[in-house]
Amino acid sequence: MKTGVMTNIAEAQLIALDWGTTSARAYLIGNGGSIVAERSSALGIMQVAAKAQSESLTLSRAFNNTLTELCGDWLASFESIPVIACGMVGSQQGWAEAAYRQVPANLADPEFELETVEIAPGRVMHIIPGVLDLKELPDVMRGEETQILGAIELSDLAPNSHDEQWFLLPGTHSKWVKVSGRTITEFSTSMTGETYALLSSQSILSKLIEPSDSVDWNAFERGVRVSQSPEGGADLMLTAFSARTLVLTGRLGKAEVADYLSGLMIAAEIRSVIGTSMTVSVPPLTICGNKELSARYTKALNVFGIDQVRELQGTAPRGIWAIACTQGLLQSASV
Amino acid sequence: MKTGVMTNIAEAQLIALDWGTTSARAYLIGNGGSIVAERSSALGIMQVAAKAQSESLTLSRAFNNTLTELCGDWLASFESIPVIACGMVGSQQGWAEAAYRQVPANLADPEFELETVEIAPGRVMHIIPGVLDLKELPDVMRGEETQILGAIELSDLAPNSHDEQWFLLPGTHSKWVKVSGRTITEFSTSMTGETYALLSSQSILSKLIEPSDSVDWNAFERGVRVSQSPEGGADLMLTAFSARTLVLTGRLGKAEVADYLSGLMIAAEIRSVIGTSMTVSVPPLTICGNKELSARYTKALNVFGIDQVRELQGTAPRGIWAIACTQGLLQSASV
Repeated sequence: MKTGVMTNIAEAQLIALDWGTTSARAYLIGNGGSIVAERSSALGIMQVAAKAQSESLTLSRAFNNTLTELCGDWLASFESIPVIACGMVGSQQGWAEAAYRQVPANLADPEFELETVEIAPGRVMHIIPGVLDLKELPDVMRGEETQILGAIELSDLAPNSHDEQWFLLPGTHSKWVKVSGRTITEFSTSMTGETYALLSSQSILSKLIEPSDSVDWNAFERGVRVSQSPEGGADLMLTAFSARTLVLTGRLGKAEVADYLSGLMIAAEIRSVIGTSMTVSVPPLTICGNKELSARYTKALNVFGIDQVRELQGTAPRGIWAIACTQGLLQSASV
Repeated sequence: MKTGVMTNIAEAQLIALDWGTTSARAYLIGNGGSIVAERSSALGIMQVAAKAQSESLTLSRAFNNTLTELCGDWLASFESIPVIACGMVGSQQGWAEAAYRQVPANLADPEFELETVEIAPGRVMHIIPGVLDLKELPDVMRGEETQILGAIELSDLAPNSHDEQWFLLPGTHSKWVKVSGRTITEFSTSMTGETYALLSSQSILSKLIEPSDSVDWNAFERGVRVSQSPEGGADLMLTAFSARTLVLTGRLGKAEVADYLSGLMIAAEIRSVIGTSMTVSVPPLTICGNKELSARYTKALNVFGIDQVRELQGTAPRGIWAIACTQGLLQSASV
């Protein structure tokens, strides 16, 4: 899908890519970090790997072909502007592995090293490394760190404040991230989105689910409240079965199952991170993710008594721009 | 698969079926409950439903055809002996719905009602109802109640004792059941087996798993201990990601992932049911399930400090026999 207002294209300063597992987004960025044009596609690294295999290409060649498919016209029109990517493109399964930075990781540190791959003679694409939290049960992220930096840049929170704030990046693997200033200090991943997709489409629960066009917020909130209750305090593997038994006993409609389960799962995730107490206080919390999913987490957090929640979308290009600036990739005075 | 010693076939007293979602087992039972012959097949109720659809048969007709396929020769040779089944064959998706009995459910009560379906003019098959626990988050079982009764009959525990004992029936949906005498008082279901199958075959974790012929008990025990630790105390959706990050950081081998995850999940289930305390005391516990899975639960329970664990296999036919006796289905003096 190629879209974007091209009027300011003469100002193009940077080609930025948010290249994940199942999708790739390309941004043409102009003066001051403004987005001149953007495109998204389903050409995530999994698709690229599949393409490499089916067309008997090296992985590098398949990635470079995909880059051309995504934004070959921009690369041709702006031969001297830098190209930089974040996300799973820098993983072992990606184009080139960008070694993780360990927490505490200052996202605005000008010294950290970008990986590079050659995309044409004399031209490279830079890859922003992910972050590793080498705790007892380690954790990793690739791409989310850049979204977080973008959120900090876009936010009205004092950027030099060292007060802790939290970021939540919901999705297939949602991330809960503690940040002090611009430094990631600790984080945890929950496989909520992926587990929900599997349970709701393939488990015994899937047979009860009647599809619906809109979110049933009452059913969702019921799931959240069940997860908060003493009866719902067990691991999700035990409470999830209630999505079936409540239907069998006539206490839940089939059209409510999907959102009840969603509430149950999101609340189990929140409960694991912040506890069940209604009096818990958490630092200012920003959710970076798609609107519908962010709305679910905000709603659930509200039920937990947490009202200081802000939602931001599309923070990745702003984060990539900030890193390109601090890394000195942009030579022009217009930065 | 037709097997069984047929020498004592003249003594046949009862045709018993343990008819579940994905499999059906038929037993020809002789004097005193001895198994004269047995057969198992993959003709569970899901397969019967698929057959009904593909061959344009009514569900009843498809079930009756399947019964003939399973044990038509027994039905023909022993025209006057009773036929009785337990399991999902008595569910809404089965042959005929046998209304649940509610807890407290005395499994040896001669008064509870069996469902019946006609299998030939003047001949019926009886269906043993499942059990319903109508608590805040309700729970249901079909078939497990009969396995439990069989285990009590087979066990050396004083059968009239009203001391509480626990039964664990691991599997796709594992059941934890509190029993007093022969009465089920409360139970809970964990979707552990089904969730494990989905995560280990289809999630991001599946990409790391190297198949192995034998159980890696060290990896399994490590998963159990992680789940017991403060770091592993979160919901499984959070701790499961460690099966990936420990590999990425070189702390877990790919050949260990499957059993590490299994230990993590089984322990999260146990933790939800009995808590994490090492000093917890639970009533005598009997595991009824297949040998490998039972061994995993026994091992995990041992790590939790619970040593009083007994394993029993193949308890369903004994339970069906006991119910046939108390219900007066067997007229002969040989009972």
